[in-house]
Amino acid sequence: MPRRRLPTPVLVDGIKTGNRGILARAITLVESRRPGDQRQAQELLQQLLPYTGGSTRIGVTGVPGVGKSTFIDAFGMHLVEQGHRVAVLAVDPTSALSGGSILGDKTRMQHLSRHPDAFIRPSPSRLSLGGVARRTRESMLLCEAAQFDVVLVETVGVGQSETVVSEMVDCFLVLMLPGAGDELQGIKKGILEIADIIAVNKADGDNMARAQAAKQEYRSALRYLQRRHPEWHPKVTLISALTQKGLPQLWDVVREHRAAMSSTGALKALRDTQRLRWMWSTIEERLLDAFHAAPGVKNSLADVENAVKRGLLPPTAAADALLESFQQDYSVSSQSSSS
Amino acid sequence: MPRRRLPTPVLVDGIKTGNRGILARAITLVESRRPGDQRQAQELLQQLLPYTGGSTRIGVTGVPGVGKSTFIDAFGMHLVEQGHRVAVLAVDPTSALSGGSILGDKTRMQHLSRHPDAFIRPSPSRLSLGGVARRTRESMLLCEAAQFDVVLVETVGVGQSETVVSEMVDCFLVLMLPGAGDELQGIKKGILEIADIIAVNKADGDNMARAQAAKQEYRSALRYLQRRHPEWHPKVTLISALTQKGLPQLWDVVREHRAAMSSTGALKALRDTQRLRWMWSTIEERLLDAFHAAPGVKNSLADVENAVKRGLLPPTAAADALLESFQQDYSVSSQSSSS
Repeated sequence: MPRRRLPTPVLVDGIKTGNRGILARAITLVESRRPGDQRQAQELLQQLLPYTGGSTRIGVTGVPGVGKSTFIDAFGMHLVEQGHRVAVLAVDPTSALSGGSILGDKTRMQHLSRHPDAFIRPSPSRLSLGGVARRTRESMLLCEAAQFDVVLVETVGVGQSETVVSEMVDCFLVLMLPGAGDELQGIKKGILEIADIIAVNKADGDNMARAQAAKQEYRSALRYLQRRHPEWHPKVTLISALTQKGLPQLWDVVREHRAAMSSTGALKALRDTQRLRWMWSTIEERLLDAFHAAPGVKNSLADVENAVKRGLLPPTAAADALLESFQQDYSVSSQSSSS
Repeated sequence: MPRRRLPTPVLVDGIKTGNRGILARAITLVESRRPGDQRQAQELLQQLLPYTGGSTRIGVTGVPGVGKSTFIDAFGMHLVEQGHRVAVLAVDPTSALSGGSILGDKTRMQHLSRHPDAFIRPSPSRLSLGGVARRTRESMLLCEAAQFDVVLVETVGVGQSETVVSEMVDCFLVLMLPGAGDELQGIKKGILEIADIIAVNKADGDNMARAQAAKQEYRSALRYLQRRHPEWHPKVTLISALTQKGLPQLWDVVREHRAAMSSTGALKALRDTQRLRWMWSTIEERLLDAFHAAPGVKNSLADVENAVKRGLLPPTAAADALLESFQQDYSVSSQSSSS
C-alpha cells in the first residue's frame, strides 16, 4: 500500500537536514506520474532550488563486464572515507522493460549501500529515456539539497543514454577494459567524444601490460577528436576497482577537471546551458507525447507511417495531415481541461 | 514581378519530359512559403511520387578551400559525358543571412552549368536548416521525376548541415585536403562517422606525397569508428578535380557502394527510414514553430529562459508554464482557422 503523502514543508526540512528516508520519499514523488504528485514535486523543487548546485556531478558509463558496480562501490567508499557524502543515481532505460535492475543495488554495491554518508537509488522504471532523464535530473537536485556533495550518475549505455547523462553532469567518466588495438573498433560510437576522463579498469595483476597498451591507444584515439571544452583535454587513467589502486588519483583528475572548468567560468556556462536544454527537451518531449496521445493521430498513425515508408505518400503531406488532426484534438483537450 | 503560377498538370508533364525550365519553376513553388504555393507543391509531389527514387543520391561536403565547386564541376562533367543526367542541389543554412551564395553557381561551376544534361540549383535562402532540408528533399524528388539519375547535394558544412544532408542521401562523400597527422585534429567533429567515401582532393603535383600520407591517416582514423552500415566499410580515394585524375575511380567506388547496399536490401531500408524520419522531423519542426509563434509563449519566453538560466525557476516548471500557455493559443488558432 502506498504511504500517505508528506506535506511539502516536512519534505523540505527533512531534505535540508540530509535525512535519507525523507529524500527517498521525495524522489518517489518526483518519479510519480500522478498529476497531484507532480504538482507537489514541482513545488518542492521550487523551494529547494536555492540549496541545489553544490555537488560535483559525475556521469559513469562502461560496457557490461567492465566492473561498473564494483567501481562505484570502491570509488564511493574512497570518497565517503575522505568525508564526502555520495549519492548514486542510475539512468537505465531498459528498466522500462525489466521494471528495475536485475541485481538489487544492495547486492551490487555492498559496502557503499551500508554507509550512512551514501545514498543509492536505482533507475526510475517504466519510463522512456526522456522520462528517466527528467526524473534523474530532479533527483540530483534533491540529493544536492540533502547535502550530498558528490553525485554519481550511472548509465548502462543503451541507446542514447550516455549522451543524455553526459548532458546532465559536470564530468563524464568512461570505464574501459584493458586491451588494445582492434578492441578499439568495438567501442560504442560517439563515446570517446563525450568522455572527459577515461579510466581503464582491471589494471591489476596479469592485465597491467594490456592496460598500459590500452591507455596509449585511447590517448592516441582522443587525438583524432575535437575537445568538448577548450579548457580540458580528456585524460586517461589506470584503475583497479578490485585492489582500489588508482582511485585517489582518479579523484585528483576529477578535481583537476573541475578546477580547469571553474577557473574560466566554463562550468557555470555549462550548467546554464544544460538547464535551458533541459527545459527545451521537456517541452519537445511533452509536445510529442501529446501528439502521440491525440486520438486522431493514434487512429491513423500506423496507416500513415506505412504509406510514407512504402513511398505512397509524401512525408510532408503526411506530416501536415497528422498535425491538422492533432491540432483539433489538442484544442478539444484544452477546452475540456479548462472547463 | 513574380510570374503567374503554372497549373499542376503543366508542371507534371513538363517535369516528366525533363524540361529544366519547368523543373526550376516547380522548385520555386516547393521553396515558397505562401500557403497556396505550398498546397500546390504538395499536390505536385503527390502526383510525381511514382516517378521518383531513381537517382543515385550523393551528399558532398568539405571545408572551405577544399575545392568543392571545382570538384562538382569536374565530377559532374565526367558523369554527363558518360551519359548521366546530373542535378546539383545545395544545403546552405548561411544563405538565410546572405540571401544566397557569394558567387553565383554559374561562376562556381562554369562547365557543368552550361551543359544541357545538368541542372544546378542554389540553396533555398531565408530558411532555417530544417526548412532548407525539407525543400532540398522535395527538390531532389522533383529532379528524379525529371529524369536526373545522379543528384549531388552539396553542403557548406555549417552547424548540423552535414548530418542533415547525410540523412537525405544514399552515399555521403567527404572531400579532404592533403596533409597528415596533426591536421586530422582539426577536422570537424563527427564528420568521419558519417562519411561513406573520403576523397582526398588536390592529389596532384607536389602534393602527392602528402595526399598519400593523408589517405593512410584517414584510413587508420576510420578504424576507430563503428560502421554506419555493416555492408560497407568507408573507403578513401585520391582525386584531383584540377587534373580530373581519380574521378572515374571515385565513380567506381560510388557504384561499388551502391551495389553493396542494394544487394542486401540495405539501400531500400535506408530510404524507408529516411522517409519516416523526414516525416517526423517535419512534425517536430512544425510543432516547435507553432510553439514559438504562439503569442503567450512569445511574450514570456525571454523572461522564462532567463529565470531558468539563472537557476531561479526549475526547468520542468518552466516547460509546464510555457506549454499551458501554448495549448491555449494553439486551440484558439485552431478554432479561428476552422471557422
